[in-house]
Amino acid sequence: MLNPSAVLYGPHDVRIEDRPVPKPAPNQVLVEIAAVGICGSDVHYYEHGRIGGYVVHDPMIIGHESAGTVVDVGDGVDRNRIGELVALEPGVPCRTCTQCLWGRYNLCPRVVFFATPPVDGSISHYVAIEAAFAHSAPSGLTAEEAAMAEPVSVGIWAARKSAVTAGDRVLITGAGPIGLLAGQVARALGADTPLITDVSDFRLARARDLGLRTALAGTLLEEEFDVLLECSGAAAALTGGMRALAPAGRVALVGMGADTVTLDVALVQGRELSVTGVFRYANTYPLALQLISSGAVNVTDVITHRFALQDTERALTIGQTDRSSLKAMVYTATAPSRS
Amino acid sequence: MLNPSAVLYGPHDVRIEDRPVPKPAPNQVLVEIAAVGICGSDVHYYEHGRIGGYVVHDPMIIGHESAGTVVDVGDGVDRNRIGELVALEPGVPCRTCTQCLWGRYNLCPRVVFFATPPVDGSISHYVAIEAAFAHSAPSGLTAEEAAMAEPVSVGIWAARKSAVTAGDRVLITGAGPIGLLAGQVARALGADTPLITDVSDFRLARARDLGLRTALAGTLLEEEFDVLLECSGAAAALTGGMRALAPAGRVALVGMGADTVTLDVALVQGRELSVTGVFRYANTYPLALQLISSGAVNVTDVITHRFALQDTERALTIGQTDRSSLKAMVYTATAPSRS
Amino acid sequence: MLNPSAVLYGPHDVRIEDRPVPKPAPNQVLVEIAAVGICGSDVHYYEHGRIGGYVVHDPMIIGHESAGTVVDVGDGVDRNRIGELVALEPGVPCRTCTQCLWGRYNLCPRVVFFATPPVDGSISHYVAIEAAFAHSAPSGLTAEEAAMAEPVSVGIWAARKSAVTAGDRVLITGAGPIGLLAGQVARALGADTPLITDVSDFRLARARDLGLRTALAGTLLEEEFDVLLECSGAAAALTGGMRALAPAGRVALVGMGADTVTLDVALVQGRELSVTGVFRYANTYPLALQLISSGAVNVTDVITHRFALQDTERALTIGQTDRSSLKAMVYTATAPSRS
Amino acid sequence: MLNPSAVLYGPHDVRIEDRPVPKPAPNQVLVEIAAVGICGSDVHYYEHGRIGGYVVHDPMIIGHESAGTVVDVGDGVDRNRIGELVALEPGVPCRTCTQCLWGRYNLCPRVVFFATPPVDGSISHYVAIEAAFAHSAPSGLTAEEAAMAEPVSVGIWAARKSAVTAGDRVLITGAGPIGLLAGQVARALGADTPLITDVSDFRLARARDLGLRTALAGTLLEEEFDVLLECSGAAAALTGGMRALAPAGRVALVGMGADTVTLDVALVQGRELSVTGVFRYANTYPLALQLISSGAVNVTDVITHRFALQDTERALTIGQTDRSSLKAMVYTATAPSRS
Repeated sequence: MLNPSAVLYGPHDVRIEDRPVPKPAPNQVLVEIAAVGICGSDVHYYEHGRIGGYVVHDPMIIGHESAGTVVDVGDGVDRNRIGELVALEPGVPCRTCTQCLWGRYNLCPRVVFFATPPVDGSISHYVAIEAAFAHSAPSGLTAEEAAMAEPVSVGIWAARKSAVTAGDRVLITGAGPIGLLAGQVARALGADTPLITDVSDFRLARARDLGLRTALAGTLLEEEFDVLLECSGAAAALTGGMRALAPAGRVALVGMGADTVTLDVALVQGRELSVTGVFRYANTYPLALQLISSGAVNVTDVITHRFALQDTERALTIGQTDRSSLKAMVYTATAPSRS
Repeated sequence: MLNPSAVLYGPHDVRIEDRPVPKPAPNQVLVEIAAVGICGSDVHYYEHGRIGGYVVHDPMIIGHESAGTVVDVGDGVDRNRIGELVALEPGVPCRTCTQCLWGRYNLCPRVVFFATPPVDGSISHYVAIEAAFAHSAPSGLTAEEAAMAEPVSVGIWAARKSAVTAGDRVLITGAGPIGLLAGQVARALGADTPLITDVSDFRLARARDLGLRTALAGTLLEEEFDVLLECSGAAAALTGGMRALAPAGRVALVGMGADTVTLDVALVQGRELSVTGVFRYANTYPLALQLISSGAVNVTDVITHRFALQDTERALTIGQTDRSSLKAMVYTATAPSRS
Repeated sequence: MLNPSAVLYGPHDVRIEDRPVPKPAPNQVLVEIAAVGICGSDVHYYEHGRIGGYVVHDPMIIGHESAGTVVDVGDGVDRNRIGELVALEPGVPCRTCTQCLWGRYNLCPRVVFFATPPVDGSISHYVAIEAAFAHSAPSGLTAEEAAMAEPVSVGIWAARKSAVTAGDRVLITGAGPIGLLAGQVARALGADTPLITDVSDFRLARARDLGLRTALAGTLLEEEFDVLLECSGAAAALTGGMRALAPAGRVALVGMGADTVTLDVALVQGRELSVTGVFRYANTYPLALQLISSGAVNVTDVITHRFALQDTERALTIGQTDRSSLKAMVYTATAPSRS
Repeated sequence: MLNPSAVLYGPHDVRIEDRPVPKPAPNQVLVEIAAVGICGSDVHYYEHGRIGGYVVHDPMIIGHESAGTVVDVGDGVDRNRIGELVALEPGVPCRTCTQCLWGRYNLCPRVVFFATPPVDGSISHYVAIEAAFAHSAPSGLTAEEAAMAEPVSVGIWAARKSAVTAGDRVLITGAGPIGLLAGQVARALGADTPLITDVSDFRLARARDLGLRTALAGTLLEEEFDVLLECSGAAAALTGGMRALAPAGRVALVGMGADTVTLDVALVQGRELSVTGVFRYANTYPLALQLISSGAVNVTDVITHRFALQDTERALTIGQTDRSSLKAMVYTATAPSRS
């Protein structure tokens, strides 16, 4: 096969198929993908064939947290980029609508986003993408570290939307990959050592290894926080977390899970809390790569499993079979270097 | 009586009593009160003897939207202030805590606020207050206009917290006094002509008289908004209003009523909406007085009833007996000039 | 001639020539231009053949403040746009660089801007432009009003960069077209009635007609301001204006003229003043058109002279020959309707 | 002597005198001072007897970067504070004026600031200060570290005023104590490793010891920066530094020296640079103490000399006699622990 790819046909139906090798259009680069992380949304598509109104009608290559090497360029792109290790920002916006022109391109209604039906994703040998969204990785980064710029971007965006700044006391609910990365990002921005909560001892232990403070979810928190990054998707985590906020506290809703959450109006008004939703990210990749490169954010210890491309289905199910799993990484071109 | 005052003893029990005339302490002024507006919170204390954890245990003078004339000053205050018409900002914060030092003095945990138990309010002939919180009214303002700086402040604060700016499309749910004032404030800040919704034809007609656009509450809104100022306290208004918001829309929760509201997580995340509570106001009085003085905010047409001090109880109940009521104003020192 | 255009060959050498009618490329519209305002930069190119490093080496169509009617569309553009009156935003950025993706597209190093060598401008019968930069004018606007969205945008941007908000006391130095428009924009944003200074009695009288307060430049200002919009380019205006600022005052440098200005360090530090340069604008056109449409900004009374296309050279020199001139407007397709 | 103090009588005239031990007024604490850093302004008063309009007419205790132990409290202060190590924020504002109520208390026109004539400073055994401005030091801090919260605050404020955030490329001109601390603060906020310039090899070597990147002042900088913290007071440093800024770059003017600086208008406009003055700080002490406590900002290696109180004059002159000096610290109560 010239371009083996992991294609989702429907719930519990992933097939490794050959796809045509794309040609880079003008202003695009062609990337030989090396590593692709598995995200909760990938798992959700695998399990249910849909996320809300996004339905997998036609076979779709899955995966969107990816990095690889530039192997060809389209017209208008500097040929010197060939050979670069790049992290692929998976959503390419229209750059013409109001949201784009204001710099909020994550809210572009015409964005083309990997592995969001009907757009193909990146668990594939070769992917073409706009050159401006193939971000050059600092020297020394591995491909899987570069691929992790995607979930790190989610953490950066959550921190930006909730205006995390130096000295803030930050609470993170949910010690999955996003929570563990968001906690490290908050710390890199000068926040006090963040506190992260979860129900899993394994995850809390990993959080401590990463230098975060931890508490079992549901425990009464005796301290006060300025910011809550809700990364669990659990309604109870939001409710409890908000009670722990100081006046003027800020909340970012990152985790998906509950369809609705109940807001205590008197609390939100009396303390003038602000709550903001978080949808993907914008203008985060350069910072994400830098934080990974400087060591401020350790992504390697968030990766618990590594698979070859042909084992993509196992990567999609490891979260259910192994309670000690966080991020699974698929190595598309080569055998995984460690596992 | 030297200092007749409207004193709340408990639910449905307001008495006109003589109270000692206060002496202005250092840095205070003594104000001969002229007019005091009745707020929903006053009505709530009158009906229930409490608001949440704030309970009227001891007799308490009611009212906090007040203006009058400086008749004496304490040490450290310029005697030239005697004779000034002033609007009284009813909450005097500690000015020492973190919230105060950061400029968020509305969140001061030690604030002393008129007519919040056990602090006396201002339906009284004479009130002493810190000079810095007795704001000089621009020339030409009447006392009742100056008293309206309080609810106008709520509108300003809601607009600031939701970052209303020129060109914003603003939706206001609830055409009570706060909604009608907030709508005019938003317009004064350069927003497109705001749209206000209510269930009352009377209120909607008044909104149109004030130059606002209107729609019956519950009607499907066919346009898109950038900001929602929720001033009704109705959960359905919030739910419907949020659906009408554009990506990156902002919501201020102003109205009180529902204990809890349900947030549609997918909506808040997918459009990156932000929701903030509003608690009183800070640094709004000078602007409120200016907007009233310039005519940008018409407060007079929001006042529907005027009473003498001895009729304070009627002022507190007019909202229930007259469906065509908005703001009731109590004239403390003299007979009301018009009614 | 099918596409008569005003072409600058060098200093004092403007010729009316026929140019090929452009074909709209994909995502472009073809606009039949109706009116084009003359800007100080156009005059500067006419007088000197250059502005700093931008030199008119090859003949270049002049003009960039333009409006007209869509007469054709390229692929990907809704054909219903044909017939729309549009204001042309004259700078089309790359939308790929960091500045663009952050929403600061005015700072795009690859922007293509009308009448900035070697890019042709818009004093021409027909111009093609990206559809997203041809802003639909609200109904009722005339073409010359729509063309004025360009200088109004400069005023909006100056106000945004200096964070003008409700209640601000705003000083504008220089009552040329930009100053007169910026003053009205500040007022529309809720600022106190701005004060504008100039050396010309004619300009000050016009400012008063527009509802602004005025003072002769060089007069000692006895009041204090929060914001200075320096629109004269005179170093003395900046120096004097900054002295009139309150602590935390903000300055926008809009006017061009002096190569350097001298900052009084003790003043800037002691009052924590902030000074920002202003370069064109971003995301201002919709608001500009709305402010013109609502009447908040009167652009018509800023236009003092109107010329036919063949008289473009007179339009470029009227500022020197007539002291009662402000904005000159060139009617490209038809005889000017009034003058 | 019960309260020996370093009193400045005029240029080159410092005397160690006994002063009455102050009694803490209500809401004040009495602090037994342990360590006081010498600031450039102290040296300036010593050399010239004045700074601009502030003239030492009457003998004045000098020094304002101080820390010590609470030994008594006034009415209204928790007696448990006795025994606390505190850093003294040297400026106590009025908390009543507009600047204070907005949270910009550093701009309070009525601020009472240590060692600014006619207010006494803190090189003294005992000082009384408002309790809210005696900031409790985290456990483990030494007195001299706590005293350094003052210059660290200057660095925090410069970073806040220029909006330093994660990923910013920060240039600092001037590797004196303020520059060395500001550079570390910027790094703690997530900036890329800042680059600092100076003419002194000694200072640059110290900067490298602190983990900063360095360049000789006047060298052509080949990289581009987002933020310039000008800490040298040299006009040439500002001019050169601004040329190295990217579009939308921000400048904080921290250093004092030049009375005026020349701004290149075309540069400021073309890149939309913003320049802000910095005057002391507000709401920085808790963060300063935390950054020192966490080790994010190393203050100890910025202290090069330590003196006993009776040697205050030597502390004031060491900068002239020893080129390897940075911060001199005066130990008021005890012999310096190391030197």
